[in-house]
Amino acid sequence: MAKVTDLVKRVLVGRALRSGQLHEQLLPKRIALPVFASDALSSVAYAPQEILVILSLAGVSFYHYSPWVAMAVVVVMLTVVASYRQNVHAYPSGGGDYEVATVNLGRNAGLTVASALMVDYVLTVAVSVANGVDYVGATIPYVAQHKPTVAIVIVVLLTVVNLRGIRESGVAFAVPTYAFMIAVLGMVGWGAFKYLALGEELRAPTADYEIIAEQTNLTSFAAAFLILRAFSSGCAALTGVEAISNGVPAFRKPKSRNAATTLLMMGLVSVTMFGGIISLGLVSGVKVSEHPAQDVLIDGQLAGPGYYQQPIISQVADAVFGGGSLLFVIISVVTALILFLAANTAFNGFPVLGSILAQDRFLPRQLHTRGDRLAFSNGIGILAAAACLLLWGFQADVSKLLNLYIVGVFVSFTLSQTGMVLHWTRHLKTETDPRVRFQMQRSRVINAFGAVMTGVVLVVVLLTKFMVGAWIVCLAMPVLFLMMKGIRRHYDNVAKELQLDDDYDPAMLPSRTHAIVLVSKVHKPTMRALAYARAARPSVLEAVTVNSEGTNELSAEWDRLGIPVPLKTLDSPYREITQPILDYVKNLRKRSPRDVVAVYIPEYVVGHWWEHLLHNQSALRLKARLLFKPGVMVISVPWQLHSSDRLRGRREPFAPGAVRRAPKP
Amino acid sequence: MAKVTDLVKRVLVGRALRSGQLHEQLLPKRIALPVFASDALSSVAYAPQEILVILSLAGVSFYHYSPWVAMAVVVVMLTVVASYRQNVHAYPSGGGDYEVATVNLGRNAGLTVASALMVDYVLTVAVSVANGVDYVGATIPYVAQHKPTVAIVIVVLLTVVNLRGIRESGVAFAVPTYAFMIAVLGMVGWGAFKYLALGEELRAPTADYEIIAEQTNLTSFAAAFLILRAFSSGCAALTGVEAISNGVPAFRKPKSRNAATTLLMMGLVSVTMFGGIISLGLVSGVKVSEHPAQDVLIDGQLAGPGYYQQPIISQVADAVFGGGSLLFVIISVVTALILFLAANTAFNGFPVLGSILAQDRFLPRQLHTRGDRLAFSNGIGILAAAACLLLWGFQADVSKLLNLYIVGVFVSFTLSQTGMVLHWTRHLKTETDPRVRFQMQRSRVINAFGAVMTGVVLVVVLLTKFMVGAWIVCLAMPVLFLMMKGIRRHYDNVAKELQLDDDYDPAMLPSRTHAIVLVSKVHKPTMRALAYARAARPSVLEAVTVNSEGTNELSAEWDRLGIPVPLKTLDSPYREITQPILDYVKNLRKRSPRDVVAVYIPEYVVGHWWEHLLHNQSALRLKARLLFKPGVMVISVPWQLHSSDRLRGRREPFAPGAVRRAPKP
Repeated sequence: MAKVTDLVKRVLVGRALRSGQLHEQLLPKRIALPVFASDALSSVAYAPQEILVILSLAGVSFYHYSPWVAMAVVVVMLTVVASYRQNVHAYPSGGGDYEVATVNLGRNAGLTVASALMVDYVLTVAVSVANGVDYVGATIPYVAQHKPTVAIVIVVLLTVVNLRGIRESGVAFAVPTYAFMIAVLGMVGWGAFKYLALGEELRAPTADYEIIAEQTNLTSFAAAFLILRAFSSGCAALTGVEAISNGVPAFRKPKSRNAATTLLMMGLVSVTMFGGIISLGLVSGVKVSEHPAQDVLIDGQLAGPGYYQQPIISQVADAVFGGGSLLFVIISVVTALILFLAANTAFNGFPVLGSILAQDRFLPRQLHTRGDRLAFSNGIGILAAAACLLLWGFQADVSKLLNLYIVGVFVSFTLSQTGMVLHWTRHLKTETDPRVRFQMQRSRVINAFGAVMTGVVLVVVLLTKFMVGAWIVCLAMPVLFLMMKGIRRHYDNVAKELQLDDDYDPAMLPSRTHAIVLVSKVHKPTMRALAYARAARPSVLEAVTVNSEGTNELSAEWDRLGIPVPLKTLDSPYREITQPILDYVKNLRKRSPRDVVAVYIPEYVVGHWWEHLLHNQSALRLKARLLFKPGVMVISVPWQLHSSDRLRGRREPFAPGAVRRAPKP
Repeated sequence: MAKVTDLVKRVLVGRALRSGQLHEQLLPKRIALPVFASDALSSVAYAPQEILVILSLAGVSFYHYSPWVAMAVVVVMLTVVASYRQNVHAYPSGGGDYEVATVNLGRNAGLTVASALMVDYVLTVAVSVANGVDYVGATIPYVAQHKPTVAIVIVVLLTVVNLRGIRESGVAFAVPTYAFMIAVLGMVGWGAFKYLALGEELRAPTADYEIIAEQTNLTSFAAAFLILRAFSSGCAALTGVEAISNGVPAFRKPKSRNAATTLLMMGLVSVTMFGGIISLGLVSGVKVSEHPAQDVLIDGQLAGPGYYQQPIISQVADAVFGGGSLLFVIISVVTALILFLAANTAFNGFPVLGSILAQDRFLPRQLHTRGDRLAFSNGIGILAAAACLLLWGFQADVSKLLNLYIVGVFVSFTLSQTGMVLHWTRHLKTETDPRVRFQMQRSRVINAFGAVMTGVVLVVVLLTKFMVGAWIVCLAMPVLFLMMKGIRRHYDNVAKELQLDDDYDPAMLPSRTHAIVLVSKVHKPTMRALAYARAARPSVLEAVTVNSEGTNELSAEWDRLGIPVPLKTLDSPYREITQPILDYVKNLRKRSPRDVVAVYIPEYVVGHWWEHLLHNQSALRLKARLLFKPGVMVISVPWQLHSSDRLRGRREPFAPGAVRRAPKP
């Protein structure tokens, strides 16, 4: 039985690892790019499509606005990249937006960013997995028909993998990320060559379809609103851009400079892919709709609920390489892979954020210890549960999930960039070197531009998305914010309560130690507890037992062995064990309040979970009750049963996300 | 928040009670009868009906066998009552069938009885509640339409009531039990008077219905088999007869004699009600079927799934007093009440049996402590869950549930009576007083007759019921049996492992105590731990902290306060807390293996469950790991936070089932 559970645990959660196995290395740029960019790059799998999806609400004719919308997104993207290049130089510690906001705008701004980031991590998982399933569905119809279930299964798999603590390596990130970059850039290049140089026609599988406009005869205001909404959705391309700013310590030296270069490379690749995909999509006549079942017409017929809408990269791949061709399949697969990889980065990022917040006492202290795997397990569980909830609630519909996504991202962008402006202003007050001052002023202008632009986008996102889902995020963020404030207040109150009095005198000691050893039987654990208690030479030492059926034999055995400690029997009219002992201890305390009472409890140490059900229960409960009595200390004297041997050597396995963090200096 | 959960807990589970509130009194016969008889008496609510239900499989014509079947059941009933009167005299300790079987037939027989009884308790709850819902449904159609759901709701209510720990009193049992006896005996008497003396016709609501026989043209073998099956089902009337034999200590003196008299009274009342109900049922033309929807014809039409079959006592009440009359409603209500009361007795009996088995180390030791409420909570939870599973699985169908019920009862009867025969035989070997010898021989004959008869019934029940459900019980019993054997083996192995060596010398002590106090900050809890450690005057004392960001300030503060204990800083390259301390302790042990290492851990005691999430987590994990190291004792020095005050005064509430148990002498 125990063997089986142990086996299951090994398979699911992995062999316990020794911490010596943990290597942390600094990353060269060519590895850092894939390690930190999978999240940002993967968003080109859904962002271009979403622009078309929203525009199609007013009919395919609105697609002609899409180049302008895309261009606006590219401008915002380049602005944000430029802004974060300043962050990376100013804050090489890797604290990221939370640190920047806290340092420059105060604790509340920092907590706002933290709430936004937590919500974001959940949505990164939900959106990436849902979209990944779309791409898997492009080649496997069964997956397309069971999207929510498959998505949740994948989240569960990611959870298990992360609880196992995969050995991370740069290669594990590099292979799928570079594969995705090569595949998509190759497809864009070949498609452009075919279309522009060879003059071939590209035809997406949906090129002949029509879309029924849900909104017709729009006023110019409504049309503008719709275009802004499309822009908001397109801004999903920016998610993940900030990742590098959290990872500066993991770069090789010169850290900030290498990080900034990597950020720029990532921005350029991302913009190229984004622009390329949407251009080829338009050229090949891709038609995508928010409600394909009701709005898409195939040969004049409604598509109906059986219709599966292929995602944009698959459609473009179909147009460029032909549907069902090997290259089509490869492109769909690597796109799905990078999306799952992006989801996986949230599994690392979320617990790391939790550990930073716990360090500042906004989350339970136990989440702080970075080497502590359990902290990560909790974080991973919470993240996975929340993502599954969203996936189920929104039936893994990427368009709907995206309505929630971008609020958090832009809250964090805006506050971070505003903080950077204050950062430069503060440093300019003391800096005198004109060259440095010039650089700082330039950085300040870039960050100010970034702050204004991301702020405007945030307002646009809030206006266009609030009713269709963003309200959920607007509700969740304050809840998280208040929870963290509450936890901090609790810790502060406790710290105040625990502070030493001004007249504290370290020479003050309890006058005597009155030790009692709890005895139920004469056996090795009892004798060990007794021996330890005697070795500690307390002022008074007695063995105590509660009167029950075996008490007479116990006394006889006690005398026979000649144990040089008096055995006291407590009466228990109601056959209880706990209460008589508590009462006895209370009386001891009453008689001599300046003494400390030391209660020795023999405890069994067992090796199987089910053995816990069979041992120690009364000891544990008694201990829990004794701790409420002031002036008492409780001493566990363990007896290791043979079965405990199997657990003795185990060490804490290492925590995931290690490759993104530098070792402690 | 905590207030709310506290309130919810108060409402659902009840205010924590002081054990002084627990009164246990000895019972006079007039109170003992209702306290112990509700289970046995309530079975007349379903047993007579089941005889007719099974016979009707061959058509209503087979109803003419029912008086003979009923008479056979009455004979078995009186035999069992006579047998148990012997048990009560021979075993006044209240151990019941489990004790009788264990003492006379050995451990395996005892465990077989115990498994049978456990299964039985579950079925008592399931059958009684399902049948109670039938009777409620007789007046409230909504209940009849949602039987399984209502039944599960009632089990949940009983669970909550029993977890709350109702103050039990004889009156609580007496009122519904006497009301049921008066109501049913009154109805039987009035019905008999009307029919025999006044010559009035009694007509049940189903008198004009017809029943399609499912089995026609039966061979004589098949007919006999069906009649035996009806007899098996009728034997459900015997369930609960053994209850008094478990409760002898709760009777007034002379205990055994009073218990035997009460048992006889109960048997006679039960037989009268059983015979009366089935007679009036036959006279008034009651028609009941196992599958009423398919087999009952109303005016030649199939009754169909909408048809609700009234239970037999309601039908007889209808015939005697008129449908919908006040007396009809009263009779249905008191019948439902006594059935729920019978279910409730299982909620007391199951944990008591568990406590007896735990005392013999066949179940986890923690279930033993009788005053211990938690033990009962576990038992109650398991019982309720199993009963709900059965109710759901069998859709609260009494006929189907009864197929599982009687196996366990008769296994226990047969083994107990066989054990009694051996008991008398053993005593006869040494007894010389001829008067006593005569009584013993008489008892032995009675028990032998009981053993043979219940054995035959058991075989009949197994033969006729195995395929239709009894196999589930035949599977569950060995599983429980093996589980209990396994637990006992584990305890025996541990006891052997813990036995003192023959050359044990109580003078052997560890040479020195090396104490370390874990320090993370300089605050009151740390200083208290340090003070206690110093008061214990160990051979070596040092304060130990793990290197982290705040370590420098800690050292400075330490020196400033002039704390007369050296502070040692352990290095932690991987930002862990646990491992460096474990390694340090391991080194200490290696350097001087004959010393004992005492690790003092300051612990916070908190008052709200959520505070546990915020404190102590690393302390608890460290403690759990330290216990695996031999030669280490772990000392918790509690610091009571203000919030813990609210829990300090709480005591264990008392356990349910108290009225059935005498206080400890």
